[in-house]
Amino acid sequence: MNLYHLLPGDLKASLNKIEEFLRVKPLYFDFEAGEFVWLNTREIPFREVYVRSRDYRRVARAIVEMEIRGAPAIGVAAAYGLALAALEASSRPSEFMEVVSEARKLLASTRPTAFNLFWALDRVYGAIYRFYESRGVDAAVGAALAEATRIYVEDVESNIAIGREGAKLIEDGDTILTHCNTGSLATAGFGTALGVIRYAWREGKRIMVITTETRPVLQGARLNVWELKKEGIPFKLIVDSAAGLVLERGMADKVIVGADRIVSTGHTANKIGTYMVALAASRAGKPFYVAAPSSTFQPGSKPEDIVIEERSPEEVLGVLSEKGFVRITMEGVEAYNPSFDVTPPDLITAFITERGIIEKPFESNIPRVLGWE
Amino acid sequence: MNLYHLLPGDLKASLNKIEEFLRVKPLYFDFEAGEFVWLNTREIPFREVYVRSRDYRRVARAIVEMEIRGAPAIGVAAAYGLALAALEASSRPSEFMEVVSEARKLLASTRPTAFNLFWALDRVYGAIYRFYESRGVDAAVGAALAEATRIYVEDVESNIAIGREGAKLIEDGDTILTHCNTGSLATAGFGTALGVIRYAWREGKRIMVITTETRPVLQGARLNVWELKKEGIPFKLIVDSAAGLVLERGMADKVIVGADRIVSTGHTANKIGTYMVALAASRAGKPFYVAAPSSTFQPGSKPEDIVIEERSPEEVLGVLSEKGFVRITMEGVEAYNPSFDVTPPDLITAFITERGIIEKPFESNIPRVLGWE
Repeated sequence: MNLYHLLPGDLKASLNKIEEFLRVKPLYFDFEAGEFVWLNTREIPFREVYVRSRDYRRVARAIVEMEIRGAPAIGVAAAYGLALAALEASSRPSEFMEVVSEARKLLASTRPTAFNLFWALDRVYGAIYRFYESRGVDAAVGAALAEATRIYVEDVESNIAIGREGAKLIEDGDTILTHCNTGSLATAGFGTALGVIRYAWREGKRIMVITTETRPVLQGARLNVWELKKEGIPFKLIVDSAAGLVLERGMADKVIVGADRIVSTGHTANKIGTYMVALAASRAGKPFYVAAPSSTFQPGSKPEDIVIEERSPEEVLGVLSEKGFVRITMEGVEAYNPSFDVTPPDLITAFITERGIIEKPFESNIPRVLGWE
Repeated sequence: MNLYHLLPGDLKASLNKIEEFLRVKPLYFDFEAGEFVWLNTREIPFREVYVRSRDYRRVARAIVEMEIRGAPAIGVAAAYGLALAALEASSRPSEFMEVVSEARKLLASTRPTAFNLFWALDRVYGAIYRFYESRGVDAAVGAALAEATRIYVEDVESNIAIGREGAKLIEDGDTILTHCNTGSLATAGFGTALGVIRYAWREGKRIMVITTETRPVLQGARLNVWELKKEGIPFKLIVDSAAGLVLERGMADKVIVGADRIVSTGHTANKIGTYMVALAASRAGKPFYVAAPSSTFQPGSKPEDIVIEERSPEEVLGVLSEKGFVRITMEGVEAYNPSFDVTPPDLITAFITERGIIEKPFESNIPRVLGWE
């Protein structure tokens, strides 16, 4: 059963329109097969492995194990995961909402720091609940699929808009330092921080990228290099701890990173190490930009609300390589593996969102630019 | 021919005295065999491989390929390398000084940022030259071996003294963050920054260590973990970029690192990433100490004199693992691999030397404490 007919016409049109921007499609819903499809980013850059599933539990596992990573991609995956749960539950109408709630709980537990995850799940769950109450199970399934697709389309569209806004800050000849992957492989497509770089490059600006390798999971050395090669943008790879020297010596002109979660004061949770890059940029007097869709901002939240996720120590004890996961240290070593750190607003020059650039003071400008007022 | 008889009596006594502090002996001269012996640190922690050679070219290669690393260890190795060259040259007395000069040049070219290297070579070369002029080839060989051994003994003795001085700054219950290896495996023995930790531990202070892994060569994940395990000191391993969070959250009380080269202003060249750790410590209001023997300080030098050594990009493109060197990224990726960065004096709380603690203002206190005046 092809599920494409469940989408409203305007959504079908939007799906077609974003197609040209997606040189690679790391995440999408296959309406014909009724399956969610994703590129297993753990195998990149060595192998391009696409996984297909109609089981939301498998999607949850893909998030936990970082086959799918990056806040917006996680949001899209969770959204389609919940839509798959609704599809599955539709064969047992009497337990429909229980199954959906169960799935929502499982999907929400995959990455406790990812605000987009809860936001996306709330949207799809809300759509399911409303339609289930008013028009029954089949309508709820259609609404779930449409809402997840809307999140997907909106994410790509907003990335393109972020790219357009952010590219205004990029000059011909710039060298841009970035940390972690925020590209097509971290989003529904196109990317945020890497989307800005991609947009500037497509505008014809001659830019150069310096990417950190981003230990422990090496999103820079594995994903950024793969994306930048596909796009043809010149780049150099450095170890994370070389960012300070690179900025201090003027070998990079500006920094652009993504964000996992931004609270109303401007404190930004992002990949471990972002804070140290921000310290180095500030000391060197180089602009430090955070590119993120407005859904990453959390109205009314405070820095204390940010819970630092601890991931498995195994990630530190070894490394993903061409030979798979290999150990780099001896047995019986204890490691501490915080996934994120928090960059305080005084180290951030501006935020780049799909609704425009947000400059200081952040506490008043964030609500104004994002239209919260 | 056992060469031990070439040493003066006081030097023999010193060699015996330092023995009890050396739980492992990563570098030493085997006087009976006439060979220099070193632990290949590239194989640690997976295998303990000792290499023996009487060929100074092999010693030079061991420095280049980081089988021997850490400024003081490099100094000792280069010193014994030049002594081996004198031994070798003694069979061709007419070319004696040419061969020695040739060897000095080769050994000096192995690591252009390592000030200890030139300092050690100058000392041994000076001894050779003086004795050769006044008393001939055999006396010059004896002088070379004695001078190299003096450098070795002095290094261990000064590390023990650094440990004693530095331990005064460590309190019971402290958690100490360190970056790169500065232990027995970086020196002739005992260590500098790790020597301070070792001394405090032996005094009975209950301390805990957080060590960065130290990409690209992973001195933390490979060497520190091995040394700390041998010593029984509790520790945790983190990725380099987690140091900022660890300091910011108060999970470490102070930082101690080593130094490759310290100029008269206090600017300190050390393992790439040291600068970023110093920025984070400063922001968190945590003390940042640099432990180094006085030979690391360079009178009259300026920050501009520090040449940043660039090492092979291959180190960034892969990783030393239990399965040997494995690639972590795709083919055809360009990397930038600076070996050191420079930490400016405003980020340094104090220097720990064998002659005492040096506090601010550094420009006047360095010459005073080190007795340059």
